[in-house]
Amino acid sequence: KHVLVIPGDGIGPEVTTWGKAVLEKIGADFGHEFTFDEALMGHAGIEATGNPLPDETLEKAKASDAILFGAIGHIKYDNDPSAKVRPEQGLLKIRKELGLYANLRPIMLFDELLDASSLKPEILRGTDILFFRELTGDVYFGEKKRSEDRNTASDLMIYSRYEVERIAIKAYEAARVRGKRLCSVDKANVLEASRLWREVVQEIAKQYPDVETEHMFIDNAAMQLVKNPKKFDVVLTANLFGDILTDEASQIAGSMGMLASASVGDGTGFFEPIHGSAHDIAGQDKANPLASILSVALMLEISFGLKDEAKKITDAIDKTLKEGYRTGDIADGNTYKAKILGTKAMG
Amino acid sequence: KHVLVIPGDGIGPEVTTWGKAVLEKIGADFGHEFTFDEALMGHAGIEATGNPLPDETLEKAKASDAILFGAIGHIKYDNDPSAKVRPEQGLLKIRKELGLYANLRPIMLFDELLDASSLKPEILRGTDILFFRELTGDVYFGEKKRSEDRNTASDLMIYSRYEVERIAIKAYEAARVRGKRLCSVDKANVLEASRLWREVVQEIAKQYPDVETEHMFIDNAAMQLVKNPKKFDVVLTANLFGDILTDEASQIAGSMGMLASASVGDGTGFFEPIHGSAHDIAGQDKANPLASILSVALMLEISFGLKDEAKKITDAIDKTLKEGYRTGDIADGNTYKAKILGTKAMG
Ligand SMILES: CC(C)[C@H](C(=O)O)[C@@H](O)C(=O)O
Ligand SMILES: CC(C)[C@H](C(=O)O)[C@@H](O)C(=O)O
Repeated sequence: KHVLVIPGDGIGPEVTTWGKAVLEKIGADFGHEFTFDEALMGHAGIEATGNPLPDETLEKAKASDAILFGAIGHIKYDNDPSAKVRPEQGLLKIRKELGLYANLRPIMLFDELLDASSLKPEILRGTDILFFRELTGDVYFGEKKRSEDRNTASDLMIYSRYEVERIAIKAYEAARVRGKRLCSVDKANVLEASRLWREVVQEIAKQYPDVETEHMFIDNAAMQLVKNPKKFDVVLTANLFGDILTDEASQIAGSMGMLASASVGDGTGFFEPIHGSAHDIAGQDKANPLASILSVALMLEISFGLKDEAKKITDAIDKTLKEGYRTGDIADGNTYKAKILGTKAMG
Repeated sequence: KHVLVIPGDGIGPEVTTWGKAVLEKIGADFGHEFTFDEALMGHAGIEATGNPLPDETLEKAKASDAILFGAIGHIKYDNDPSAKVRPEQGLLKIRKELGLYANLRPIMLFDELLDASSLKPEILRGTDILFFRELTGDVYFGEKKRSEDRNTASDLMIYSRYEVERIAIKAYEAARVRGKRLCSVDKANVLEASRLWREVVQEIAKQYPDVETEHMFIDNAAMQLVKNPKKFDVVLTANLFGDILTDEASQIAGSMGMLASASVGDGTGFFEPIHGSAHDIAGQDKANPLASILSVALMLEISFGLKDEAKKITDAIDKTLKEGYRTGDIADGNTYKAKILGTKAMG
């Protein structure tokens, strides 16, 4: 299998180094051959070519069997709202070009990290959520406008039936082989796009009578996720709401540094941590590489159907945590026995 | 002062009964005369007149010195995405008609309720946040469209400079007399409306050099709010993001049943709990009336400038909680000594 590594910005290069190393080790141990290539995106792409998604990167992406991505973004652009070219455009464009309409974000809970969360252990224990975030529609991709006098700005929040259908089907298929509960999150009491969303999910739900469906407003969901995360099994939601809820949910796993995501759709799968580029710690051997390594586990399972290989990775992480090893981000809480490691040592 | 009570739907009538009763008691104790009127809105308005905001209600609202509102919404409409007339339209319309562009949501933390939260007490202790949610713009009020074949739906997320300016000024004024820190939440790395938002806040910030400004993306804010709520002082954000963040923040206060909000702008102030209509417990003497009573405290302070009177209410609630009295929603956690009360007894 041919894997394209896109390190991206900030801590991206450090963490993908270890994701890639783990994939090579798995290949060696199980007798699979992985070949690799590398490409630029985001700020790194802008610096080298002026383009956050260079043509060469897109070509290489389309030609690969799976993509391992690091992180995107740069503080320089965050504080310059009038910048025309932005790192994030690269990520949004590759999602669209590769048809990566379904972003799967499993909330994995390592027992050893129960104390690293700001939530009480008894609230967390037993939580197991799989988010399906729609990734190529919504206000992210609707038309953007700025009035000529620059005093009015808008983005179109828009969904079409087929966009909701295809992700709903993926989410229901997953719910069927998991806890058989699906919660669809929208704001149908206010938004027309959400009313279409709810209509379509209600229709698809009929084809899955074995799955229990619940509809929840986004404000309530943001609350319930903190109050009682155990009540969720599969959560299906739109692009913007999914962005917010999954970051919030990262606190369930103790840290953003522990969460991986898989973006799938029509072709090549795309695997990345849900954390950002974290420029404040970049290049200091502080970043947690486990989310990148868990992204590789998702790649093995989802793109290559290699379950045992994926399990070997999660088992290794479990063992490492049990032995008391931690990066800084997951060393909060009961740290008396933690052995704090840098990126390299943890990798 | 003339107060209009709009009980609304679900548990609205039960809880506003006690808000009103407390206001009458304060009037008697401090020698103020409050006169009252009542009006319909939401599902109650639809049932009686076919209109979620009857003309008479709007007239009475404009003629009053302050409005005490209960809750809105009905499950019947939630599950019928194609309904043309909806309870929520009443609330959105009155916000717009009265020019209530600033929604203040203080996150008050009663010491006695530290254990009622799903967050660890050491994470919560010392948290004191004041949200400024923009309330008459954004995707809530932008144009809504449904294609003729009903297969595509959209809502326009739109902001104009003056809308951001006026709420930003209110938030900075508040930050100046509080902790002197303001966090503005947006999604400027993706949304044009957010980029305008950030530009304007950056400009207004220059007029408040004594206030420390931070800009945060909504996904990160949703995470930080759970991870470390103490880091926030004043939070300034748009309508949709504010809706989500404040519901999430309710878990900091132990329950939605404890949070009040004030909507202010050009004229009459509007005071309401942030909780919803909770039809599942309506009419069962189970609802927590404290959020409605705290809404009255906000009314006294903000609309009438009566600080001592407001403090008498919060002190009374504090005492009641210290004595171990709880409604069901705040009786989780260490309930061994709680005396569980219904709505009436708590009121
Ligand atoms: C970097 C940003 C554009 C991106 C998003 O909002 O989708 C990120 O937050 C994510 O969740 O992958
Ligand atoms: C009922 C609904 C329209 C409303 C909103 O979204 O504004 C509510 O959730 C709120 O926060 O006041």
